[in-house]
Amino acid sequence: MTVSREVELEGHIIDSGMMQSCFGIIMDLGGSFSVQEFDIGRHKDEESYARMLVEADDEDQLQSIVHELHQHGVNPSDPKDATLVPAPDDQVVPHGFYSTTNHPTYIRHDGEWIEVEDMEMDCAVVVEDGDSPQAYTKVLNAIEEGDLVVTDETGIKVQPPERPRDSGGAFGFMQGGVSSERPSESTIRKIANAIRETKKEGGKVLAVCGPALIHSGAREDLARLVREGYVDMLSAGNGFAVHDIERDIYGTSLGMDTESLDHPRHGHKHHIYTISEVIREGGIEEAVESGTIESGVMYECVDNDRPFVLAGSIRDDGPLPDTITDAVEAQNAIREQAHEADMVLMLSTLLHSVAVGNCLPSTTRVVCVDINPATVTQLLDRGSAQAVGMVTDIGTFVPILAEQLLDEE
Amino acid sequence: MTVSREVELEGHIIDSGMMQSCFGIIMDLGGSFSVQEFDIGRHKDEESYARMLVEADDEDQLQSIVHELHQHGVNPSDPKDATLVPAPDDQVVPHGFYSTTNHPTYIRHDGEWIEVEDMEMDCAVVVEDGDSPQAYTKVLNAIEEGDLVVTDETGIKVQPPERPRDSGGAFGFMQGGVSSERPSESTIRKIANAIRETKKEGGKVLAVCGPALIHSGAREDLARLVREGYVDMLSAGNGFAVHDIERDIYGTSLGMDTESLDHPRHGHKHHIYTISEVIREGGIEEAVESGTIESGVMYECVDNDRPFVLAGSIRDDGPLPDTITDAVEAQNAIREQAHEADMVLMLSTLLHSVAVGNCLPSTTRVVCVDINPATVTQLLDRGSAQAVGMVTDIGTFVPILAEQLLDEE
Amino acid sequence: MTVSREVELEGHIIDSGMMQSCFGIIMDLGGSFSVQEFDIGRHKDEESYARMLVEADDEDQLQSIVHELHQHGVNPSDPKDATLVPAPDDQVVPHGFYSTTNHPTYIRHDGEWIEVEDMEMDCAVVVEDGDSPQAYTKVLNAIEEGDLVVTDETGIKVQPPERPRDSGGAFGFMQGGVSSERPSESTIRKIANAIRETKKEGGKVLAVCGPALIHSGAREDLARLVREGYVDMLSAGNGFAVHDIERDIYGTSLGMDTESLDHPRHGHKHHIYTISEVIREGGIEEAVESGTIESGVMYECVDNDRPFVLAGSIRDDGPLPDTITDAVEAQNAIREQAHEADMVLMLSTLLHSVAVGNCLPSTTRVVCVDINPATVTQLLDRGSAQAVGMVTDIGTFVPILAEQLLDEE
Amino acid sequence: MTVSREVELEGHIIDSGMMQSCFGIIMDLGGSFSVQEFDIGRHKDEESYARMLVEADDEDQLQSIVHELHQHGVNPSDPKDATLVPAPDDQVVPHGFYSTTNHPTYIRHDGEWIEVEDMEMDCAVVVEDGDSPQAYTKVLNAIEEGDLVVTDETGIKVQPPERPRDSGGAFGFMQGGVSSERPSESTIRKIANAIRETKKEGGKVLAVCGPALIHSGAREDLARLVREGYVDMLSAGNGFAVHDIERDIYGTSLGMDTESLDHPRHGHKHHIYTISEVIREGGIEEAVESGTIESGVMYECVDNDRPFVLAGSIRDDGPLPDTITDAVEAQNAIREQAHEADMVLMLSTLLHSVAVGNCLPSTTRVVCVDINPATVTQLLDRGSAQAVGMVTDIGTFVPILAEQLLDEE
Repeated sequence: MTVSREVELEGHIIDSGMMQSCFGIIMDLGGSFSVQEFDIGRHKDEESYARMLVEADDEDQLQSIVHELHQHGVNPSDPKDATLVPAPDDQVVPHGFYSTTNHPTYIRHDGEWIEVEDMEMDCAVVVEDGDSPQAYTKVLNAIEEGDLVVTDETGIKVQPPERPRDSGGAFGFMQGGVSSERPSESTIRKIANAIRETKKEGGKVLAVCGPALIHSGAREDLARLVREGYVDMLSAGNGFAVHDIERDIYGTSLGMDTESLDHPRHGHKHHIYTISEVIREGGIEEAVESGTIESGVMYECVDNDRPFVLAGSIRDDGPLPDTITDAVEAQNAIREQAHEADMVLMLSTLLHSVAVGNCLPSTTRVVCVDINPATVTQLLDRGSAQAVGMVTDIGTFVPILAEQLLDEE
Repeated sequence: MTVSREVELEGHIIDSGMMQSCFGIIMDLGGSFSVQEFDIGRHKDEESYARMLVEADDEDQLQSIVHELHQHGVNPSDPKDATLVPAPDDQVVPHGFYSTTNHPTYIRHDGEWIEVEDMEMDCAVVVEDGDSPQAYTKVLNAIEEGDLVVTDETGIKVQPPERPRDSGGAFGFMQGGVSSERPSESTIRKIANAIRETKKEGGKVLAVCGPALIHSGAREDLARLVREGYVDMLSAGNGFAVHDIERDIYGTSLGMDTESLDHPRHGHKHHIYTISEVIREGGIEEAVESGTIESGVMYECVDNDRPFVLAGSIRDDGPLPDTITDAVEAQNAIREQAHEADMVLMLSTLLHSVAVGNCLPSTTRVVCVDINPATVTQLLDRGSAQAVGMVTDIGTFVPILAEQLLDEE
Repeated sequence: MTVSREVELEGHIIDSGMMQSCFGIIMDLGGSFSVQEFDIGRHKDEESYARMLVEADDEDQLQSIVHELHQHGVNPSDPKDATLVPAPDDQVVPHGFYSTTNHPTYIRHDGEWIEVEDMEMDCAVVVEDGDSPQAYTKVLNAIEEGDLVVTDETGIKVQPPERPRDSGGAFGFMQGGVSSERPSESTIRKIANAIRETKKEGGKVLAVCGPALIHSGAREDLARLVREGYVDMLSAGNGFAVHDIERDIYGTSLGMDTESLDHPRHGHKHHIYTISEVIREGGIEEAVESGTIESGVMYECVDNDRPFVLAGSIRDDGPLPDTITDAVEAQNAIREQAHEADMVLMLSTLLHSVAVGNCLPSTTRVVCVDINPATVTQLLDRGSAQAVGMVTDIGTFVPILAEQLLDEE
Repeated sequence: MTVSREVELEGHIIDSGMMQSCFGIIMDLGGSFSVQEFDIGRHKDEESYARMLVEADDEDQLQSIVHELHQHGVNPSDPKDATLVPAPDDQVVPHGFYSTTNHPTYIRHDGEWIEVEDMEMDCAVVVEDGDSPQAYTKVLNAIEEGDLVVTDETGIKVQPPERPRDSGGAFGFMQGGVSSERPSESTIRKIANAIRETKKEGGKVLAVCGPALIHSGAREDLARLVREGYVDMLSAGNGFAVHDIERDIYGTSLGMDTESLDHPRHGHKHHIYTISEVIREGGIEEAVESGTIESGVMYECVDNDRPFVLAGSIRDDGPLPDTITDAVEAQNAIREQAHEADMVLMLSTLLHSVAVGNCLPSTTRVVCVDINPATVTQLLDRGSAQAVGMVTDIGTFVPILAEQLLDEE
């Protein structure tokens, strides 16, 4: 005797590989299925629809298949309400809590589908009951006693974004593996177009930057992009800000003059002197106001009111007074920026890019640039439908991008 | 009219390249010199001595040459006392403060040389006056108003360690560049000997570990090394502990069974469930005591009283209750471990290795193992005389090391 | 008015992604389709079948769609004979010649399907007419005037191998991206099992080896594998043989003693002396017979009659008399080995692995081992259904593999 | 009882590290020494001189020390003539033949020092006697029976080039390790200056190019540099030429349109069709003349009479009729170009760069550009005093270099 449940697939279910995953899951988990309706979109802009009956040996197996299926966007045709269990204590989730993906997600509550707000992965979903009930994500350490947490697999609908082969949009390129053997200038032109398009639609661009950007001489061009409004927000670490300011005060980055390539004597002390100067002033904004800092990325952020988050790390010197040293507090600041961003440029930093990426829904446009292919691969490997990776030198990427955006208008 | 000052070089001044640097510095900075005494050690265990007169055009130039020289271990033959200036405010150093190297350093005070304690680089030196005056390093954010801080270049003696070509010790090998094309098993044997030697001398071994160690299947062998006392302390991040415990509770690491290489369904949620379980218990020690955690690296640390530091980072999930989320607090915990360690194994983590390396004097033995040559190069590039790098797979390195240490005794 | 053609798909058409590719091709090329029969294998060991009508605006477009489809294994249900055109001159193919994939391929000739022999990619297909007609691949430079060469797209059937998710066999693991963060020892155990299985089935194992294998100290263990019959054939370059023999005669590899890690003085000349010695003897076999070479990989090849190919390259010193200096001649020797091999181990050489890989059909088992992830990615990126990549240190990989195969039987 | 010999050091013996090496060698090999004269150049443009007595326990040890010393440029103050032994057979050198470094070398013959011509490393030195005797290098396979070959260590003087810290010339920058975290645009500006300087002095620039240059979209800018005379000679492989021509005929490189980033259907066959077209024409020059090839790097080489060498390799498809398939013949062609070059640009190819580098004396200017730091390190690791490495993206490097050279004059 078997048990069964009817499920539905909708959208570009063949192109996106959804149907392939779906059949695979059922067979892997020992179930079987019969396709009851199958309406294939014959043109690339037509959506498809499939309805099928999933069969399993017992209820447990069926549950497990159905759970796995909706992680991939396959939903029961006859849904039930989500199960809500109050959190037993602060920071403690109920057993069997539902851990989120980064895809758009809906919760069935009182027979209605509610979209979960602030989607990001590895969170719990908390439902706030009332006249107009709301559902949103909470990271584990933000759970409070009594929060109504969604548990087990029922009443949840996930919509993994489809990656259409030919979207026509700025991001309809560069799918496939990561390699340095790709046309560099043409790719940068496409990225510039995507930034322009994002700005035109009123969107916000967040740049996530590592100190290599400064060392490799790209500071002045990034500063121009901030000034001219192509970068609306900045996410970086203490080291990025220190070397940016070091270049302003001492003309060096990590002790090397990025113009002449000289290593002035004492240069290896410039970064610690820089920190000391900014501490003396009380912070970056104060140092800009007093005229101690007169140029650079941080200067343009302050001067043009572009909000920045400097997240601390255990390898920091100093740190600067602006650096948020508590990781949880810093994550919250990053989270806020990430949720506001419509496009994210991840520029030669693995640590900060992962931190920002953790807070992004899969629908946000992401560009990852690094000279190490392993870094780009790791950053792209998160199921974003809109991510583009490029293996190149940040010290040539930013100048060419700036030229494309600023000089070729 | 010129000014001049007499300086001295002692030790393996030719082998170690000290004399070459010294002549170079003087000529680069526009000075000249005459060698007044030159006694070369003709055999490899003999030390050399040189005394010379440095000449410059004016006092400023001379100061600058002499300052640069003693950064490289060349000291005036007629030293003066160090200059002490009180810190004007908390976290604020006096202008022109002396920023440390990681080499053994002495401060001249009341005509006596005092060794600076807790040497690490990029710190200020604070002198505590009194009957038996003391000098020690302080990071910038630990400076308190009124601290007597060493400024400018006088009265300071630095001793960069020499890297003898043929030390006879366990670390007299593998000098030169970093490459994966080195004999792997022979190198691991040398490292095993160095660990044995360190333990025999009563020294302490600190392992700095990244999560790749767990993913690559080396967890069980590292756990044995902790249990058998070849690793005395552990420095890691939240992710390392989470995946180590995930493997215990769910049999996976990052969702993959490290034995069978299967990816069990739900595997991608195991790490977040693991965090949730440990939070529920209140911490790792509590989870070991309650029997929730029954094996692995963290288990052996708790079971055998090996102290561990888990430093937080902005990419952490959770984090575990044991993770120190504040970067400054975490650095202090790391600093304490680093100062106690006689040998440090840096195992496939750049972030934590840099953090620990920042706190180490140049005299501590360091082994860096990573599959990315750029990581090994960056870690070795800190002037440690006792650092050995190896480009290899951590998943084969740890098992072979454990075999060498445990099975071939 | 549209034109149409009926095509068929058979096998694991969903699992293998074939159906997804097929629909994508039709839509990309501006055609449309209707599914006329669709029989899905509901269990993982059941095959599926689909028949559909492809429609296009004109015959050209239809041709182009149908051509592209059968590159992906979709074949017209109503096939015609292949078009044969005689080659106009030596080394000159007819216009529009069919350039092969590396998948099993059939040519329709006189109404019968003939399997193309010696499948490898980027070749022409030549048909030898007669009572029992034959079809085989020819590289461009082997074409002779008058050869009957298959042109355009009709009458050709390609069968891309399916990569079943759960084959049960030794290679049913490690699908997905390339990363160093995989369980190393468990993966090596799987590879050892695959070698054992291949030998048990009477298959032949070809090892493709770079000089890094010798430098990293894996020589002795590879020599054991040759001696014990786990490696049947060897494909390498001049440098591999030189350093293998250098280690025998002088105890070094690239001048370094791979046991003691010493660099004996004169060591940098050992490789050129080695070449000189072998030239003096007349070749490797002669040098083994005369007792000049007494151990190592080349020694075991000679001693145990394992055929080897040493292919020359422009960076060779010497070269040894055994090295085939002409690239085309060397390719032919490699091709012969490749066609005989049932399993290929590609060990830390990009150049030789690509050369061998070029000659392999997609059905041969391939294992690629390199410490550089980009190398492994590039080697796997050839559509082989049976390829497994591992990012690890060859100097630890070979010893652990040898231990698995030889000591744990 | 000891034996002794007097040796001399001249030049920037401290700056260049020569003295340090010298003392090290003597001590390593168990000898001792006394410095008899020591005259240090006190300014950076003054040379130094040292004379010392080397002592050893017996004649063998002394020989071995003295041999090693002159490899590092330390020569006996009382030299003897070089020992000449006739080669016993074709390709067979006498026992104990002298194997060259890549540094300028002199042979003492009949009491006179003769400079060895065509210096390159790992060669034998052959002396042609007569009225005006000559000495030149020969690779092992070019040795003919009866050639007078220099053996053992006497009568040879080597002059390793000094790398002055502040040469003022275009190459007085970027010493030190290899890293991607260097100022990219400033470095390219320095390289452009060095090219300009080389051309101004009437020198020749050889570009060594890999196919990644074409794939990454840098083809048009390299073609401009060839046309405008900044590149005088080209050294590449079959693949480089094929993809350059593929881009001309089909608009793609490896099947991808380098402008639009599209993958036209059939694109994966373009390279083999390209080869077929050029074979049909009889070669590249013929295809340029017939109008089949109308643009690109190879086109500009033909059109502007810039000689090119296409060296074959075992991974080649085709190959093109212009490709030299025999490795020894190709090496000879490369050698001729290398000896003519005053500056060599090694652009994203390890194989061809090593082949060219093998034939260069240590006095030729070399620039190595690759995105893989390990490649750059390996290429720089050859004792050239004039080598500069840069870790960057060839697809952005060439356009910026061309802009610097062509647009900013």
